[in-house]
Amino acid sequence: MTAPHDRPYEVRGEAPPGLLDALDAYEAALMSDDIAAMDALFAPGDATLRGDAGGVLVGHETIGAFRRSRGGAPARTVRAVHVHPAGDDAAVAVTIFEARTGGRGQQTQLWRRGTDGAWRVEVAHVSSPPATYDRRVWRIVGDPLVEPTGTGPLDGETVAVKDLYAIRGYATGAGVPAYQADQPPARDHAPAVARLLAAGAAVAGIARTDQFAYSVAGLNDPTGAPPNAAVPGAVPGGSSSGSASAVALGAATLGLATDTAGSIRVPASYQGLWGLRPTHGSVDATGVVPLAPSFDTVGVLARTADRVVRAAAVLREEGAPDRTADGPIVVAPQLLAVCEPAVAGAFAVWVSAAGGVVEEVRLPDVDAMYEAFRVRQAYEAWQAHGAWIEAHPGAVTGAVADRFAAASRVTVEEDAAALEALGVYATELDAVLAERLLALPAASSPAPTLWADPTDVDRTRAATLKIGAIAGITGRPAVAAPLLHVAGDTTRHAPVGVSLVGPRDSDLALVRRAASFA
Amino acid sequence: MTAPHDRPYEVRGEAPPGLLDALDAYEAALMSDDIAAMDALFAPGDATLRGDAGGVLVGHETIGAFRRSRGGAPARTVRAVHVHPAGDDAAVAVTIFEARTGGRGQQTQLWRRGTDGAWRVEVAHVSSPPATYDRRVWRIVGDPLVEPTGTGPLDGETVAVKDLYAIRGYATGAGVPAYQADQPPARDHAPAVARLLAAGAAVAGIARTDQFAYSVAGLNDPTGAPPNAAVPGAVPGGSSSGSASAVALGAATLGLATDTAGSIRVPASYQGLWGLRPTHGSVDATGVVPLAPSFDTVGVLARTADRVVRAAAVLREEGAPDRTADGPIVVAPQLLAVCEPAVAGAFAVWVSAAGGVVEEVRLPDVDAMYEAFRVRQAYEAWQAHGAWIEAHPGAVTGAVADRFAAASRVTVEEDAAALEALGVYATELDAVLAERLLALPAASSPAPTLWADPTDVDRTRAATLKIGAIAGITGRPAVAAPLLHVAGDTTRHAPVGVSLVGPRDSDLALVRRAASFA
Repeated sequence: MTAPHDRPYEVRGEAPPGLLDALDAYEAALMSDDIAAMDALFAPGDATLRGDAGGVLVGHETIGAFRRSRGGAPARTVRAVHVHPAGDDAAVAVTIFEARTGGRGQQTQLWRRGTDGAWRVEVAHVSSPPATYDRRVWRIVGDPLVEPTGTGPLDGETVAVKDLYAIRGYATGAGVPAYQADQPPARDHAPAVARLLAAGAAVAGIARTDQFAYSVAGLNDPTGAPPNAAVPGAVPGGSSSGSASAVALGAATLGLATDTAGSIRVPASYQGLWGLRPTHGSVDATGVVPLAPSFDTVGVLARTADRVVRAAAVLREEGAPDRTADGPIVVAPQLLAVCEPAVAGAFAVWVSAAGGVVEEVRLPDVDAMYEAFRVRQAYEAWQAHGAWIEAHPGAVTGAVADRFAAASRVTVEEDAAALEALGVYATELDAVLAERLLALPAASSPAPTLWADPTDVDRTRAATLKIGAIAGITGRPAVAAPLLHVAGDTTRHAPVGVSLVGPRDSDLALVRRAASFA
Repeated sequence: MTAPHDRPYEVRGEAPPGLLDALDAYEAALMSDDIAAMDALFAPGDATLRGDAGGVLVGHETIGAFRRSRGGAPARTVRAVHVHPAGDDAAVAVTIFEARTGGRGQQTQLWRRGTDGAWRVEVAHVSSPPATYDRRVWRIVGDPLVEPTGTGPLDGETVAVKDLYAIRGYATGAGVPAYQADQPPARDHAPAVARLLAAGAAVAGIARTDQFAYSVAGLNDPTGAPPNAAVPGAVPGGSSSGSASAVALGAATLGLATDTAGSIRVPASYQGLWGLRPTHGSVDATGVVPLAPSFDTVGVLARTADRVVRAAAVLREEGAPDRTADGPIVVAPQLLAVCEPAVAGAFAVWVSAAGGVVEEVRLPDVDAMYEAFRVRQAYEAWQAHGAWIEAHPGAVTGAVADRFAAASRVTVEEDAAALEALGVYATELDAVLAERLLALPAASSPAPTLWADPTDVDRTRAATLKIGAIAGITGRPAVAAPLLHVAGDTTRHAPVGVSLVGPRDSDLALVRRAASFA
């Protein structure tokens, strides 16, 4: 045992015997990423807590899973420890440390001595030196990056623009560093950006996207997953991941995003935001890097329904008709069957609380529809980016690279068959839905954790895309509204969105209709 | 007393009687900024702690002073409280809250029941939702904002460029929003920026500066003081405040800054950085917003001496002679007399530890030299910016506005007299110093807290400028090296720099000489 005065840091307060040795052992384990040692130094059980800027994790097992996924802690040096004993067998230790990369941090721990005489951590709270810039969320950000060009209904709003949109003077990155390096600076803003600026909004910055927007997880391999503002340790949802996290964290009031297969609705669902996938073709997509033009849409994310309506109204083509969304709400049991039971259950409770008789409808085969959607999306994605990807081996990585590799193998014949099937499905869906609003969960599950089993993540992803494909196939608008909560792996209140799919051009009324349930 | 299940948040764990009521009372006091109530709910004495991203404050009095200075806490809603009792009269409470502006935060508190039966906080640790962008540090920041244009000795370095330098495509802001709005986008990089880019460095972003660089505090009225990475609750030092905080926090590896009267050396001293004010005129200042060209210099800040040398070598005019700095070190008791006793004491210890006989030198009257420097600086500052300031009433604010107002009253005759006196002082100083290195503290005090008495701050500022003026008057280079620590208001280890003023063009050797003492 080392006496307090022999330690390479200042000790203030009276440390109970053995506590500083345990603290030193923890620090050594942390710096060497010795997970077994850290696990042993944390109290077992469901009440043990560990929190940092990413949120609070509850339970020894969850904390261990987090540790195994993060790949070590940043290097640091302990400068001082303040000890506050509490009773005979507990003490709070506040550690002041210097990060090797600069700045100071704080670690506050409740240590308790077990009946075996060993000290273990029961509560931990870690603050790293403040980040002045989170590169997981933003490629570039400013105060603002681009000033408004006019005034109007978006005065005072700040927009996190997904890195698919042309912004004058900047190369568009599409989440792929090598692609960005290949692009010239944009000569003009994309029309969607220009409309928001003219209506009074400023561009806060260029927000991260999954590579070529071909993902709904938001892992963003090259720069790391943006934090989920609602669920500790969970993926943010993608591909509009940076925009969604920026809005959820209050760093921007609006996210300008895109939704091909769920890229607005999924992050909205995972982080408790409002999101609108507009009627296909109702917003000018010029100057936006495409993924699959048959399904690509230009939409928005916000923390309130009102902001979504105001921004969506600005984005719509001039003269586009604004139709109503006051038809009856219907549900499709086939879609609920693919959701996690907790989500289906919370949705059922919402449906009954929403009041009135909600009719059930029968849709074409959900798996078959998704398969046709998936093939067409893949074919178009390869048409859009295959040549560049082949010329730049290794530039796209991870699951997105796998997806493009699969897309490269879709034949013209397969695409033609998918296209024909999609036409039939669209007709059938339009016949079933007509003026009615299809209600469904915006995602099949709450946001998976970063350390979730990849098999589970793939299943969740497929289910979420299946239920999200209805809007894409019909071109109908879909809103995601933060109306549900379910127990997630790291919180008892993980958000899940309710989606309403409405008649074409009912976009604004559709969001207002969803807001009537909030 | 309210039962746990009646509260509007989830309670986990067994709360001792009265604890949740005390917690609710604290929350109410926090939300209404009832400082007396918060003070009463925190334990009296020197061991009480409160930490957040800005650092850990120790002692009831210091915590109260912080509270009175901050103007309230951000609005939030408590969602859950996890209680971990420790002994009969203590408990750790972990509060999970939602910020009104988005995201979740954590507050960990050690509560203790006093002999009077009342619960009080003894340790508090607060994490707000993670900021994705700190507008106090950066006007614009990216990954990077500007790519390198070549490779060389600065490969891999990232530069926080003070918002006085032209960067192609951006208006220069000079810390004054209205001025920024008046400027066209720069057509070319300032030569200093271009040199760093050509040598392999990237521009991380445009960092905040005090208004027109006319301050050494770093308060940056329009956007708020950047955090001091070394001293909790302290000013960062200015006017290169954003660059210094970015470098100290590890958000950039180099700060491109300017030093007229101490704007590199003071933030370096306050935050424990290396900084070089180069030989006057040895680095091209084209494309840099001036303050007082007689004294303005283009220099750098970094966390290591090696980086300062590499960057300074890149910045120097081609063909500039690199002279040695191996002369004897001398000290001037007149300069130490104006420093805080703790600083003078720590400096004296350093001098004796530095080894060898250090000669004392006699300089011209320090107050008189500073007065001449101050008058000339003010005259030139008004020449540079007076017309714009007069045309934009209210655009410059706070102490900087007061300084410009005083500058506007300096007459041509006063300036001529100051200029003549400065010539005499320069000759006298050159005669005394010759090839010798003048060692002195880089600032007269550690960084003052944000809540320091304004009278004390003014005295500290004047003293710091007095000791810093020697370099300006002679045009000699001055390095600030993080070699001292003294007890500050909020830490026992506040950094203070040692400055060495060397012969003209000894810049690189001077930094290396200072590094030999590290």
